[in-house]
Amino acid sequence: MDPDANTLLQRLLNERPVAALATLHRGEPAISMVPFVVAPAQAQLLIHVSALATHTQDMLDHPRVSVLVTAELADAPSPQALPRAALVADALPLARDSAAYLEARARYLARFPDAAQTFELGDFSIFALRVQSARVVAGFGRAYSLAGESLAALLRGIPAP
Amino acid sequence: MDPDANTLLQRLLNERPVAALATLHRGEPAISMVPFVVAPAQAQLLIHVSALATHTQDMLDHPRVSVLVTAELADAPSPQALPRAALVADALPLARDSAAYLEARARYLARFPDAAQTFELGDFSIFALRVQSARVVAGFGRAYSLAGESLAALLRGIPAP
Repeated sequence: MDPDANTLLQRLLNERPVAALATLHRGEPAISMVPFVVAPAQAQLLIHVSALATHTQDMLDHPRVSVLVTAELADAPSPQALPRAALVADALPLARDSAAYLEARARYLARFPDAAQTFELGDFSIFALRVQSARVVAGFGRAYSLAGESLAALLRGIPAP
Repeated sequence: MDPDANTLLQRLLNERPVAALATLHRGEPAISMVPFVVAPAQAQLLIHVSALATHTQDMLDHPRVSVLVTAELADAPSPQALPRAALVADALPLARDSAAYLEARARYLARFPDAAQTFELGDFSIFALRVQSARVVAGFGRAYSLAGESLAALLRGIPAP
């Protein structure tokens, strides 16, 4: 593994506020945009989604998802070389008012204070995306795969924001 | 349909250089990043992909894909309100040296001159993504669905770059 790719993955997950989320929708790939925050110790991403959104039912029906986080275009030498990470994860809703939920809510609101209103709505819930593997592309022809303990260790190494 | 959402869809497809591509990979949703250019008259997006990339085999196995194009974060009032369009499309490879291929190559290279090298490689091909439907989110709570002739007319209305 390229040390630059390790740092890139940590930086993308720590700094980027949104991801593209691919879910399985009636047997077809579906895509949507989600704000997210990383929970390093748990090797999870946290998202806050509405029961009215298609992706929420998709995740309940089929927890395996894929997530793409990309760098700023302005930071890439060309669109083809845009640094990015694609993660495979299992999405599970957190039980409201569980300890995990309260910790996740605090983490999410620290990142997205404007979301406080949506936490007052009954139809929103937090899903934890348990990261299983990652594919990191640091530039043209520089792609790396990560999984298991080496990936979890990288995620745990993400500094507090 | 909100006229602002129509304009937003045209602007995203015309101006943004990359999309997130969701494909079906062995029954699971997979995600990757692709540079793209729009072919307005055909209501298609054009992508240039390597046979070595997983998404290429995914599209050959299962042509239905979903594509997400997002605005610049700097242009959004908040990450949650990031303007975006999610398209459902059918991905079909263009036969090399067909008239459609040559036109698509010229259009792609006009947008991405740096890609000229990859057109020299035998393992790259152009896929046309035939757009079937679109979901446009212009901001928080402002989502619109488009399909059929109204969507095709919008795509045809995209001005030449």
